[in-house]
Amino acid sequence: MLYQPHLITRRIVPENQEFPMLSLSSRITPEHLFYVRNHFPYPVVDLSSWKLGIGGLVDQPANYSYEDLLRMPQYSLAVTLQCAGEKRAYFHPLTPGEQWELGANSHAVWTGVRLADLLRAAGIRRNALEVTFEGMDRGGRTDMPGEFTFMRSLPIPVACHPDLLIALYMNGQPLPFRHGYPARLIVPGWYGMASVKWLQRITVIDEPFQGPFQTNDYVYLREGGDQPASEPVTRIRLNAMIAQPTDQEVIARGNHWITGAAIAGDHPVALVEISIDHGDTWHAASWIDPHETYAWRRWCYLWGADQKGTFSMMARAVDLLGNTQPVRPDWNKKGYGYNAIQKIQVHVE
Amino acid sequence: MLYQPHLITRRIVPENQEFPMLSLSSRITPEHLFYVRNHFPYPVVDLSSWKLGIGGLVDQPANYSYEDLLRMPQYSLAVTLQCAGEKRAYFHPLTPGEQWELGANSHAVWTGVRLADLLRAAGIRRNALEVTFEGMDRGGRTDMPGEFTFMRSLPIPVACHPDLLIALYMNGQPLPFRHGYPARLIVPGWYGMASVKWLQRITVIDEPFQGPFQTNDYVYLREGGDQPASEPVTRIRLNAMIAQPTDQEVIARGNHWITGAAIAGDHPVALVEISIDHGDTWHAASWIDPHETYAWRRWCYLWGADQKGTFSMMARAVDLLGNTQPVRPDWNKKGYGYNAIQKIQVHVE
Repeated sequence: MLYQPHLITRRIVPENQEFPMLSLSSRITPEHLFYVRNHFPYPVVDLSSWKLGIGGLVDQPANYSYEDLLRMPQYSLAVTLQCAGEKRAYFHPLTPGEQWELGANSHAVWTGVRLADLLRAAGIRRNALEVTFEGMDRGGRTDMPGEFTFMRSLPIPVACHPDLLIALYMNGQPLPFRHGYPARLIVPGWYGMASVKWLQRITVIDEPFQGPFQTNDYVYLREGGDQPASEPVTRIRLNAMIAQPTDQEVIARGNHWITGAAIAGDHPVALVEISIDHGDTWHAASWIDPHETYAWRRWCYLWGADQKGTFSMMARAVDLLGNTQPVRPDWNKKGYGYNAIQKIQVHVE
Repeated sequence: MLYQPHLITRRIVPENQEFPMLSLSSRITPEHLFYVRNHFPYPVVDLSSWKLGIGGLVDQPANYSYEDLLRMPQYSLAVTLQCAGEKRAYFHPLTPGEQWELGANSHAVWTGVRLADLLRAAGIRRNALEVTFEGMDRGGRTDMPGEFTFMRSLPIPVACHPDLLIALYMNGQPLPFRHGYPARLIVPGWYGMASVKWLQRITVIDEPFQGPFQTNDYVYLREGGDQPASEPVTRIRLNAMIAQPTDQEVIARGNHWITGAAIAGDHPVALVEISIDHGDTWHAASWIDPHETYAWRRWCYLWGADQKGTFSMMARAVDLLGNTQPVRPDWNKKGYGYNAIQKIQVHVE
């Protein structure tokens, strides 16, 4: 009971809570610390009437009960979810929305049926362009009238990838209610908004989906500059996080472990490097975890802090193609995809 | 179980956790959300051997058992505790230590014996200058060798004030262990470091106490300027906090309650004023709570947000003498006593 870290409460209704990143002790996030990101109040779920519908441009529309899904072959995959608004609080100027710091991400092993198996059974028609995923959570928006369900789409090639799951289990237990029970989509490598919770309907369509969580939210909006004015938020950008020490921490002289995690949605993270001198020199961190394609990978670095003073500590991830993180964040109006190199100050006494 | 706010974890050992200020719904903070500020790991408390010793420059040294204290007259007082590092994260440049935001404060009704009664029974000698209070929590420091208990002093006139309690109860329940069981000092109106937890010894002395939590920590350290280079941290500075909305919150057009709390350790808070236009015009908030000398007082203001746009919202407290909060924080090296006017941005859609 003592020394119990807690979720960091960003909003109560809808519930938005952050994993306390400084408590990153295991690769799998304990369920009670798994970050929670909701757009609406929790839905009412009645398992006796719940069905997962598949329809639209398919030859064999279907309605699967929970038991139907449980009887199908189950696949497991370790997938870290990261909110697209992760580290939003670090943008300057600040941008609207939940002011997530380091912990809008968590890791679990998800088990369920392959979305590709369901789509194959349904038979996607040749004119199909996208697949939409509709959750049971619903409510109003501040920027337009009406009521909406949380709904997202994926292009057909992404939706048919064998690694996408309709997850029924999280870390070997039935999916907890607040993480999408009875079933949630898991889109490995994508920011968390793609992994629709309380999934109730899958629809194959022949035009780009225009719902507000696809076209108003979760787009990189910019003014001027070289980059497009609007670009969809998709895969997790290469990023490393320092879990310990924490910013402005005061430590005694001696050896200290610097620890954290790194993740990327495009190419595997090859290396994490640490700088203690504001980026002048960099040292390779060691891996705590083995490589798994869609999982964050914890790293550590032993720092011999034998000088008193204030140190500017940075961690940067490098992927297999040699890409690394930018020094400056890619500021965008809605504050998505922050992946500038994290920098903290540590005081050695 | 759903929609459960949590303490915001700033450090796990020693445990330092912050009240999520956005969940300020009652004046009394629920015990599981009461902020926790520790300098050391938790002590081991054995009630069968625990005594509260009173000694030093007194005529009648004494050792009180828990039962002795329970049998004495019990007084109750509503006292808000606020950490001296409250809002430290808002200083620029950042200062070392826990990066507390709004919630390093909480409110409870404390019940226990009067310190003044114990001191009177002991008989303070005429050459006495200060009274020290020693907790059972102990450990090392980063800035000097050796082991220390958490220990603080008060000048004799402060220590003899009838409102200081040796609290045995919090909100009618025996003092919870993490808040100082079996007994903690409560120094109303002072920052929380004065309210020593797990109190084990009270000593009357004839010279200024020089312990590190008195002279190294909890002093306003400054360089240059008009103010003294070093000044002890004592009473809670006049300050108002906005609980809702939160910084960068997105809201729909319409009426919204702005809510928060205000507190001061010197003179009663007379008024809280709100500005929606970056400080050009100010409007009086209404009180939710009646005045109680040592308690934060919740306030509210109904804002008719009928224009779209981004608004700079501020709240400032004014005390009975007409003092108000500064626009700029009194930056000091260790980041204590932040009480600049809080400013947030709210986006109306």
